[in-house]
Amino acid sequence: MTTLIQNGRIVTAADEYTADVLIDGETIKTIGHKLPTAGVDKVIDASGQLVIPGAIDPHVHMELPFGGTVSSDDFFHGTRAAAVGGTTSIIDFAIQYKGKTFKETLDDWHRRADPNCAIDYGFHLGVTEYEPRHTAEFAEVVAHGVPTFKLFLAYPGVFMVDDRTMFRVMQSAGKAGGLTLIHAENGVVIQEMIENLVAAGKLEPKYHAQSRPPVTEVDGAARAIRVAELAGAPVFIVHVSTAGAAEEIKRARERGLPAFGETCTQYLFFDDSKYDQPNFEGAKYVFTPPLRPKENIEPLWEALRLGYLQEVSTDHCPFHFKGQKELGRESFTKIPNGGPGVEDRLAVVYQGAVVEHGFSLSQWVNLTSTASAKMFGMFPKKGTIAVGSDADIVLFDPKKSQVRSAKTHTSK
Amino acid sequence: MTTLIQNGRIVTAADEYTADVLIDGETIKTIGHKLPTAGVDKVIDASGQLVIPGAIDPHVHMELPFGGTVSSDDFFHGTRAAAVGGTTSIIDFAIQYKGKTFKETLDDWHRRADPNCAIDYGFHLGVTEYEPRHTAEFAEVVAHGVPTFKLFLAYPGVFMVDDRTMFRVMQSAGKAGGLTLIHAENGVVIQEMIENLVAAGKLEPKYHAQSRPPVTEVDGAARAIRVAELAGAPVFIVHVSTAGAAEEIKRARERGLPAFGETCTQYLFFDDSKYDQPNFEGAKYVFTPPLRPKENIEPLWEALRLGYLQEVSTDHCPFHFKGQKELGRESFTKIPNGGPGVEDRLAVVYQGAVVEHGFSLSQWVNLTSTASAKMFGMFPKKGTIAVGSDADIVLFDPKKSQVRSAKTHTSK
Amino acid sequence: MTTLIQNGRIVTAADEYTADVLIDGETIKTIGHKLPTAGVDKVIDASGQLVIPGAIDPHVHMELPFGGTVSSDDFFHGTRAAAVGGTTSIIDFAIQYKGKTFKETLDDWHRRADPNCAIDYGFHLGVTEYEPRHTAEFAEVVAHGVPTFKLFLAYPGVFMVDDRTMFRVMQSAGKAGGLTLIHAENGVVIQEMIENLVAAGKLEPKYHAQSRPPVTEVDGAARAIRVAELAGAPVFIVHVSTAGAAEEIKRARERGLPAFGETCTQYLFFDDSKYDQPNFEGAKYVFTPPLRPKENIEPLWEALRLGYLQEVSTDHCPFHFKGQKELGRESFTKIPNGGPGVEDRLAVVYQGAVVEHGFSLSQWVNLTSTASAKMFGMFPKKGTIAVGSDADIVLFDPKKSQVRSAKTHTSK
Amino acid sequence: MTTLIQNGRIVTAADEYTADVLIDGETIKTIGHKLPTAGVDKVIDASGQLVIPGAIDPHVHMELPFGGTVSSDDFFHGTRAAAVGGTTSIIDFAIQYKGKTFKETLDDWHRRADPNCAIDYGFHLGVTEYEPRHTAEFAEVVAHGVPTFKLFLAYPGVFMVDDRTMFRVMQSAGKAGGLTLIHAENGVVIQEMIENLVAAGKLEPKYHAQSRPPVTEVDGAARAIRVAELAGAPVFIVHVSTAGAAEEIKRARERGLPAFGETCTQYLFFDDSKYDQPNFEGAKYVFTPPLRPKENIEPLWEALRLGYLQEVSTDHCPFHFKGQKELGRESFTKIPNGGPGVEDRLAVVYQGAVVEHGFSLSQWVNLTSTASAKMFGMFPKKGTIAVGSDADIVLFDPKKSQVRSAKTHTSK
Repeated sequence: MTTLIQNGRIVTAADEYTADVLIDGETIKTIGHKLPTAGVDKVIDASGQLVIPGAIDPHVHMELPFGGTVSSDDFFHGTRAAAVGGTTSIIDFAIQYKGKTFKETLDDWHRRADPNCAIDYGFHLGVTEYEPRHTAEFAEVVAHGVPTFKLFLAYPGVFMVDDRTMFRVMQSAGKAGGLTLIHAENGVVIQEMIENLVAAGKLEPKYHAQSRPPVTEVDGAARAIRVAELAGAPVFIVHVSTAGAAEEIKRARERGLPAFGETCTQYLFFDDSKYDQPNFEGAKYVFTPPLRPKENIEPLWEALRLGYLQEVSTDHCPFHFKGQKELGRESFTKIPNGGPGVEDRLAVVYQGAVVEHGFSLSQWVNLTSTASAKMFGMFPKKGTIAVGSDADIVLFDPKKSQVRSAKTHTSK
Repeated sequence: MTTLIQNGRIVTAADEYTADVLIDGETIKTIGHKLPTAGVDKVIDASGQLVIPGAIDPHVHMELPFGGTVSSDDFFHGTRAAAVGGTTSIIDFAIQYKGKTFKETLDDWHRRADPNCAIDYGFHLGVTEYEPRHTAEFAEVVAHGVPTFKLFLAYPGVFMVDDRTMFRVMQSAGKAGGLTLIHAENGVVIQEMIENLVAAGKLEPKYHAQSRPPVTEVDGAARAIRVAELAGAPVFIVHVSTAGAAEEIKRARERGLPAFGETCTQYLFFDDSKYDQPNFEGAKYVFTPPLRPKENIEPLWEALRLGYLQEVSTDHCPFHFKGQKELGRESFTKIPNGGPGVEDRLAVVYQGAVVEHGFSLSQWVNLTSTASAKMFGMFPKKGTIAVGSDADIVLFDPKKSQVRSAKTHTSK
Repeated sequence: MTTLIQNGRIVTAADEYTADVLIDGETIKTIGHKLPTAGVDKVIDASGQLVIPGAIDPHVHMELPFGGTVSSDDFFHGTRAAAVGGTTSIIDFAIQYKGKTFKETLDDWHRRADPNCAIDYGFHLGVTEYEPRHTAEFAEVVAHGVPTFKLFLAYPGVFMVDDRTMFRVMQSAGKAGGLTLIHAENGVVIQEMIENLVAAGKLEPKYHAQSRPPVTEVDGAARAIRVAELAGAPVFIVHVSTAGAAEEIKRARERGLPAFGETCTQYLFFDDSKYDQPNFEGAKYVFTPPLRPKENIEPLWEALRLGYLQEVSTDHCPFHFKGQKELGRESFTKIPNGGPGVEDRLAVVYQGAVVEHGFSLSQWVNLTSTASAKMFGMFPKKGTIAVGSDADIVLFDPKKSQVRSAKTHTSK
Repeated sequence: MTTLIQNGRIVTAADEYTADVLIDGETIKTIGHKLPTAGVDKVIDASGQLVIPGAIDPHVHMELPFGGTVSSDDFFHGTRAAAVGGTTSIIDFAIQYKGKTFKETLDDWHRRADPNCAIDYGFHLGVTEYEPRHTAEFAEVVAHGVPTFKLFLAYPGVFMVDDRTMFRVMQSAGKAGGLTLIHAENGVVIQEMIENLVAAGKLEPKYHAQSRPPVTEVDGAARAIRVAELAGAPVFIVHVSTAGAAEEIKRARERGLPAFGETCTQYLFFDDSKYDQPNFEGAKYVFTPPLRPKENIEPLWEALRLGYLQEVSTDHCPFHFKGQKELGRESFTKIPNGGPGVEDRLAVVYQGAVVEHGFSLSQWVNLTSTASAKMFGMFPKKGTIAVGSDADIVLFDPKKSQVRSAKTHTSK
């Protein structure tokens, strides 16, 4: 089957021009002026539209078991929500249970995802333990298309790894040509602070943020960067929420180190005043890292503008208010950590970056698609509109205004 | 006439893929897989070649009157040398003589260039005085396609402007949507240092470098950036040769200011040990700014890598050794300032950036073409390979090794 | 004559202890526990008092001709006001009129000061032109006890020097073992901004501040530091009022350069909201540099705490509201620039540094006395309480609270 | 008994002047010009000598059990060696064995020191575990004159504490008005690197340095500073050996945090080329942190000059080559870690700081005495020459040249 998209304004990470795009099957075959329509199965008029590479959200958690419940978007609904919002690829996290091999871990998560996904998807491999038997598996999983390994420096006793495991994984991942992703916090000190808050009877949602101050993230990021330097391997800090952690990545890059990072939509638009809302409303914003003091927001935009942070993801991991967030009515420690984002990301980053911060359309495409494709091994199949690339194409109307809400969301 | 370039590896500032390019007249019409050859006038097989946007050298001086002589490449030979080296557009400088309007200045330079150029070309307008009558001309020349104004903070009594003129030009250029380019040095202190050296009988070529230490450039760059901040206008520092000046641009950008800059090939490959050569050989490297101590080189590459400097030009302004450079046998102050570069730039930046510093092919294309096209108002006609763009296309064979020398040069 | 100060708490830049101080004539003779009172002419009980070295204000302008009038404190009243406030030494500025030698300049100012001063005093030499005949004078005036030369980068046509003169003075002063003090602004751009404001009918006092934005000071400071680097000489930036200029000094010091600076009391306590007052009240705060946006204040304290700025002076140069400040009713350009400070400085720095910012008593003594003594060649005669030092001693009661006002001031 | 030191040049952290010092018993009673000799028990002529406060070495380990042996200087010999070198006070470390209270720990170490010391001494309390029973002890030991607590982030399984213990100790020490000292390394990654080196048969002394690269120290320092920030407490990094760790302290101080640090003599004079010596000679330089690449040395001097590091100690902890260092012939992991220093420190810091780096005499006195007295709670009894201070006085002849060697050392 062939499809012709006519007269759209094509925007890639470098270019912006008007042309027609001819798709053959799932691949872009030809780009040109006034391409012939004869014999084409389907013709779409994209006049006035931006024709952009499908967005890639490299940080989502569909149906993630967490805190005794499961994140509310399963692969079926979550990927449909993504598609509605212009995201044509996601990368989720297959997290190793203790005792499992990497392969068993990936098989387990593929079992849930494979029959249900509406869009392309992949996994980062969340590593929680490193035994000799895992050494060989690094090269294997990279060869099978999973070049990215995720470590948690938070959640002691659950996902957290110590510096020795971090060093080993970085070294092995680096040797295999892979990249280590870090959830950067000082989980040990946070645990102590949580216990102190609980002991003091400070249990409302806002204490979630107080138990993990900005410095805990800066510490995790800086430590991960230095352990990566010792391991001679690249490192990528996920969901950067503080000016301080962005600054650590900047310093590392200025020293020539392969350090990278992302921020998420929530940290670019909201600040920690949300936790002051009454009636347990703050629980809606209980995710990790938490929202930060307002002065962190502009430096994050600045880090995107100057290229210290490479992309914007969502850490999509929603929980229903009723029945899920409410598990933490008695104590913030029981509120499932997470919030939504995958459905709205492309549009809100357009609003924030292009409309409010003067980013170019190419920068927007880069932040939402191209950079992730390049960083996580999908380029040039994904992340651009070029001959030979996958026909993951979004028509985006920049003049259209929308109100989005729980009612209109495809996401559960 | 139509031309088809088949099977090349297309590289743009964002993309890299294999496809055919169909050119109709002077414009890229279609990009696709296995485009039909029927009816095409000319078919070129580009297998194994990189198909890249024609290089743009935004800083050249053809037949420039300087120091009682004229730079040795006229528009005829200089543009042919450029073409041989893969450069399909240049921007030269039309420099205002005192008393002249902007229009008269541009007319004057066009008269010399128009009949002789082998490639596309444009002018930056070098402003040396600012009277009330010039105010209106800024909008005019921008409207006529010259959006860039060049000021010299060096050469007192010849081209140098004071801070007041700089402030006025920046303000007027900024209002007109233009950009001010700065030759950044502290010309006043340099003049004093020159006089002191001459008085001390220090006349060999190496004293050219000693008369303009790195700090003089840092000072000019920092001052220009701050006057631009006061004027509320963007600024672009030309031929950055020192780590310090690059650092000033970096600091400005981190503060959110629209500050930009370039370096030139000579500063990326040579250091000031060249001036130690005997027999007046050092005169070949007498250009301004001079070559710098070695420790400046890697920071300049780093600035390109991190994006503080946007492109690499040449400041092409050659003089023959015999008859021209020799004018300064008695004193370095009489050596015509300048050196060649336009013919070799694309290849040497490939060598330095891609081969030696691990830049991607896309970064190389950006540094030599795309960034200049965007910075100086030629994008997307120039600077990319996209449907609708000018068919300024270079086939570059990355496996080919060449020895270049005065004998093989097209440049005079 | 001998005087014994008993039981005071002696504070120097390093020490803090309780002891008696015996003064013989004008010199400290002995410090000890329970020194004998027999034969002592005068015994002072300093129990509960801080016994500190007399404050030194290294930046005052008594009876300075400026803008067609003369600063309202002459040497007689000004030095008595200083003494009342605990300041036992001042350094004023003898400013060269064009055509005068350094010696003539100093003689001229001594004529006015010598018969009138109640305390010790000295002069910085304000240089406004540099002709060959001045070269020899540098060593002479240093030998005669004036090691400090002041240059203005502001007030074009009056005091301003260009970069060449600055370079020459720094070089000559440096060779003579002297220090160059810089009034750091970009006077040329300021002149243009003043003219633009006047042309636009913006004439109220607040436009004084708008005509010299913070960046103009940063520019002057950075330029002076770099010209000093080229001249191989030390440099001292006077009346630093912006975080940016303090930062430039910091950067220079981190590079190992002998760069120094001071701030003044007014910049540590007031911000530019003062100019918003109605009824020409803002004129009271018209001095140069002007008051700055609030965010500059804490960084100035920080610079003092970390030692980037070495001392706090006043730039004491008062003008009466009636008859003097009022000269500028029609235009801010006619308001005499200056304000008072010498009488209150020691106490207000105590309040700001010790009480509000947690500085130690030793730091306070250093900022108000010792650092200036060391910087400007008066140590250890001045600036400490040590055997052999001048008996310039202040008893300061830290528990006493005072209201000071125009009514109580000794200053005119 | 009374002693009179005549005509010496008294140098303190702020002052420099010539006077006589009268000592009564162990206390300075009077400082003055030409003090009477009548009735004085002992008169010392200090003409031509610097009269300085006795040096304080705040970081020594006498008879420390380590690696199956004991550091070779016991309190008897070590303190005599100190005295010979002009050091009149030391602070050693009483290190808690698991299961012991703070009081038991201090009693244990006092038992060994009390009968043997030739000079004044004190202890930092090395904390290795934190149980509820320790909480109350913090205030107690501070009240009893031990305000400083030391933690190791190295030596896992022996002294190392985790971030939770570090957080708790800092918080408790801070509340008690105490200060936490940190041995800053990433002990966990180092352990892994050691095991990898051993597994690879890399056993010579030089691998000691390779097993703990500079970044491991930077990481420890940065982490400690951030945990201290979270705990709201001051922190002091001991034996800083890298430019990177000094930079972390600088950054913290610029953010207004109470972060401090010292370096040691060995890191100011030697670099890691010492490990290249043949015949197990490198073992003499096996201490922790190890010697560093040469480019770290000047930044450490710079940090002392700018005040980011406050003092220079020795970490004196010598082991005999025969019988002790030789324990590690088979593997660097068995070499007892440590080297000497207490006897030579005052003189070598004079050489390095005053002679080679142009520090003032006052800065030298501050680095070797005053700063430690202030930092560790001994000022003004120690650290200055002032009335009422302990008569810990050193006569230092700046013109004398000495060759020191194993033969001349008092140290064992």
